Amino acid sequence: MVETKLAVGIDIGGTNIKYGIVNHLGEILMEGRLKTLLYPTIESFVEGLYNVLSPIIAAHSTNAAITGIGIGAPNANHISGSIEHSPNLLWKGIVPVARLVSEKFGLPCAIDNDANVAALGELKFGGGKGMKDFITITLGTGVGSGIVVDGKILYGNKGIAGELGHTVVHHKGRKNPATGFKGTIESYCSAKGVVLTAKKYRDRAKEPTLLHNYSDGELNPEVVYACALEGDAIAKKVYSYTGRILGKAFANFVHFSSPEAIFLFGGVAQAGNMLLEPAKKAMEKNLLIPFRGQTQLLAAS
Amino acid sequence: MVETKLAVGIDIGGTNIKYGIVNHLGEILMEGRLKTLLYPTIESFVEGLYNVLSPIIAAHSTNAAITGIGIGAPNANHISGSIEHSPNLLWKGIVPVARLVSEKFGLPCAIDNDANVAALGELKFGGGKGMKDFITITLGTGVGSGIVVDGKILYGNKGIAGELGHTVVHHKGRKNPATGFKGTIESYCSAKGVVLTAKKYRDRAKEPTLLHNYSDGELNPEVVYACALEGDAIAKKVYSYTGRILGKAFANFVHFSSPEAIFLFGGVAQAGNMLLEPAKKAMEKNLLIPFRGQTQLLAAS
Repeated sequence: MVETKLAVGIDIGGTNIKYGIVNHLGEILMEGRLKTLLYPTIESFVEGLYNVLSPIIAAHSTNAAITGIGIGAPNANHISGSIEHSPNLLWKGIVPVARLVSEKFGLPCAIDNDANVAALGELKFGGGKGMKDFITITLGTGVGSGIVVDGKILYGNKGIAGELGHTVVHHKGRKNPATGFKGTIESYCSAKGVVLTAKKYRDRAKEPTLLHNYSDGELNPEVVYACALEGDAIAKKVYSYTGRILGKAFANFVHFSSPEAIFLFGGVAQAGNMLLEPAKKAMEKNLLIPFRGQTQLLAAS
Repeated sequence: MVETKLAVGIDIGGTNIKYGIVNHLGEILMEGRLKTLLYPTIESFVEGLYNVLSPIIAAHSTNAAITGIGIGAPNANHISGSIEHSPNLLWKGIVPVARLVSEKFGLPCAIDNDANVAALGELKFGGGKGMKDFITITLGTGVGSGIVVDGKILYGNKGIAGELGHTVVHHKGRKNPATGFKGTIESYCSAKGVVLTAKKYRDRAKEPTLLHNYSDGELNPEVVYACALEGDAIAKKVYSYTGRILGKAFANFVHFSSPEAIFLFGGVAQAGNMLLEPAKKAMEKNLLIPFRGQTQLLAAS
């Protein structure tokens, strides 16, 4: 029997940690998830991950070689192998995740920024195939980004480039509680940002809105989208407002690297055209003429 | 006698067109300038340039080979050889400068964005030697930028990447009359932006200021800097305000490409530390922890 090569893929997010076994085609053979907040320390996470994954790895090892573990995480530095000062995780400071996981599992482990991993995925297996310049934006608990320039991930001087979620579009704007920065994209376009906008619009609404059926704790981007799909005008406004901010930020990115496409990932991006249409309009409006109509906005594949 | 190779260098700006003869070391053997506004059409510019330059070229051709003409201009596309929709030049639309100059002079001609040319200069001859990731910002009539990623100019998908002057830091902010965009770096940090800030501060001043000695038409960044050097508090405030805006914009750029350095060129940058210090402070304050202290702000060499 021909030995198959498999790898373990782990996606660390602010809310969920997803894991899976993938083959060389990028096909996911099995997957599962853990709740991030159940692991307040990096040690508890490595322990918990090992308990769940080691039997799965053992089962797949009978007729395949497990070549290593790849981790995508916010604020991860692929050079140092650490997560560094993540504003959206409980693990503070510099956390040497790759080393700890590698030691525990006895397997090579590489880590990279989750949005860089998403960008690599698009480049190898997705809509970015054949493109040399594109950007991926993950609209989740935080807002991450991966930038491809001339066919390669842009790492910058220290391996940490591409934190577009923390760029500013309105320097007197809404404060992001995770970082203290005002008017950043993450302030408005992360899951938390959308919820904040939804609460504001709901509480100010002069007309009845389906958003009134939800308590503060129940509101999330999916709920807002569901209300919008049912025709709720206020819920739709939440997404058009979010899209407009996003589009202005995208104009900044396009003036920087002039990409062929910007791919959107994450919970907030599930709203599809309800978010993409106002974003596209705002982006085009804020571009110099030669940049207009050159950059596609696409939901990730 | 050994034949020397020389080239003609031309720098087209909103106010001045500088020309010179340079050798392979980047040394300028002679230089001169024309007033941009005297050439309202591209044809009049090519004609005027030829009248001035052809005798100079002839004089240098006796014991050297003139290999070609290199032009730096705002909104120039090195792939098409054209200046495209420049908001700060009188030549509107798409202007095929490289072809027109090449035909007139009978010499090869290449054109690139003025800020890309500045970046290439830094990379080959200046402070960027040995650096793989840096950005140059030209604070002149407009605000231009050249971005070096992994040792190469970032051109993007269509050859026009790197228009950082038109990125937004305050989307409800001051309108740039050249583009109509609100709250862009050019609105605040171009020569015109500095003059506008100076007028505002002068007219609002409750204390006496040296800026009152100048009419609207006489105010320019050099005058404001001269007043500041004489200890004028309001004039100093003009530069600290401009610097703070610039620093916030730089934080956006650092979160994008994490460069080793940002080099500043142009009239406004002559203010040196009066601009750089507040810019550095504002930049650092708006950076995520791993990005702090990683990017130098330098006056161009």
